[in-house]
Amino acid sequence: MNPVEKYNLRIDKVNSLLCVGLDSDFEKLPERFKTAEFPQFEFNKWIIEQTSEFVSAFKPNSAFYEARGEKGWKELQMTIDFLRQNYGDIFTILDAKRADIGNTNQGYVKAIFDALGFDAVTLHPYLGKEALKPFLNREDKVSIILCRSSDLGADEFQDLLVAGKTLWQTVAEKVSGSWNEHNNCMLVVGATFSEEMKVVRSLVGDMTLLVPGVGAQGGSVEAAVKAGINSEKRGMIISSSRGIIFAENPAEEAKKLRDEINKYR
Amino acid sequence: MNPVEKYNLRIDKVNSLLCVGLDSDFEKLPERFKTAEFPQFEFNKWIIEQTSEFVSAFKPNSAFYEARGEKGWKELQMTIDFLRQNYGDIFTILDAKRADIGNTNQGYVKAIFDALGFDAVTLHPYLGKEALKPFLNREDKVSIILCRSSDLGADEFQDLLVAGKTLWQTVAEKVSGSWNEHNNCMLVVGATFSEEMKVVRSLVGDMTLLVPGVGAQGGSVEAAVKAGINSEKRGMIISSSRGIIFAENPAEEAKKLRDEINKYR
Repeated sequence: MNPVEKYNLRIDKVNSLLCVGLDSDFEKLPERFKTAEFPQFEFNKWIIEQTSEFVSAFKPNSAFYEARGEKGWKELQMTIDFLRQNYGDIFTILDAKRADIGNTNQGYVKAIFDALGFDAVTLHPYLGKEALKPFLNREDKVSIILCRSSDLGADEFQDLLVAGKTLWQTVAEKVSGSWNEHNNCMLVVGATFSEEMKVVRSLVGDMTLLVPGVGAQGGSVEAAVKAGINSEKRGMIISSSRGIIFAENPAEEAKKLRDEINKYR
Repeated sequence: MNPVEKYNLRIDKVNSLLCVGLDSDFEKLPERFKTAEFPQFEFNKWIIEQTSEFVSAFKPNSAFYEARGEKGWKELQMTIDFLRQNYGDIFTILDAKRADIGNTNQGYVKAIFDALGFDAVTLHPYLGKEALKPFLNREDKVSIILCRSSDLGADEFQDLLVAGKTLWQTVAEKVSGSWNEHNNCMLVVGATFSEEMKVVRSLVGDMTLLVPGVGAQGGSVEAAVKAGINSEKRGMIISSSRGIIFAENPAEEAKKLRDEINKYR
């Protein structure tokens, strides 16, 4: 099975394009978790149990785990093991924003796809396709390339004009073209840029977009969904982190956002 | 003390621009280390003891440690602890090629600069200066931005023309300009591109360049040194990994390369 299909099947099963970002910053955990033996894992387990019925993907960001060194890494492993064992049909993304040259990437491939066992990873485009082949050649896994990020100042490089096109357009064209020979690529396009998302959608056919930035970062759900949805009413992984995981009632917030997305789908 | 000065002082002390890359791939370790309780650490300790008198910097690449999960992370920590305790004047770089958006980077800053305790980290430019501020604002640490990498296919994005200049030139100008307000930035420029290195040197004044790709990747030492040296006969961190650490006699190889670099300095 093409690895993107795992995500599509889950969409249909729970009628959701929602991804919950497990950005489980230790400092921000509720007090009752901070004193646990495995605080980030116990918190994640609770969030997963609360929200799983409303989501099609979970996406931990590796920065929050690395901040705690080997302990954090262990709890990241425990989190993905828990997901694989109990929610095997939910798509899993490590938001690691990696990319090294050639063979060095084999270390990350081994770490993220094999040892941890995620379905997908986020990657920087700057080093080029040739460098990223160890990721791209894994036909059983998904490579999600940064295209237009949701942050302030993202325009500094991404909006530069290259032969009349922005750099992010160039990334979108290359990734949806020659990089995607195994149909296992996706693109990151921030929810805060719905005009840009429309252009990306027009360039990449039905390719799935990972869309961070709704909620805490201020992106409008309506604008993002209308701009990014594909011809099959899928093609988006809409990710919210802080707005759900640190809410009073994460289940309620997840259901609310899932339903809001479906309203505009 | 400006953190770049630590590197400059070490250059003068041991008369060397050499950096040894601790790309300690478990699979490639000599058999006698593979069976140790902490194989990567024990190997690194041996390499450090063998080569330290000839080097001004050590640079582990995080991919090779992450490949072993929490065990690898622990041995990376042991390696940097050993360096800090025993060779406190040698400059340390984590070749991690990170970069996320805004506050997420705080996790990496905490992991790499504080918990591990490296002097410097390598970073992708694609998300822009604003995103990288958590790194750049650490005046006591060095941010080393990818400019022109040494790999095949690096031209795919890096050579694109932006307003008549290549993207790597644009990165060099931005980083040596507004990004460098704390004088704590460096650039990565592969040794395999000496013509490009000349241009970078002409754009960035005396800024220090991290130069991978001599040895195993085929870059000429003479061409690289002549193109990259600054007005103070410093300004380069010339890194070799496999060619030294997996050599029959690492000390001899390190001394040879240090001396060859000095011949053209």
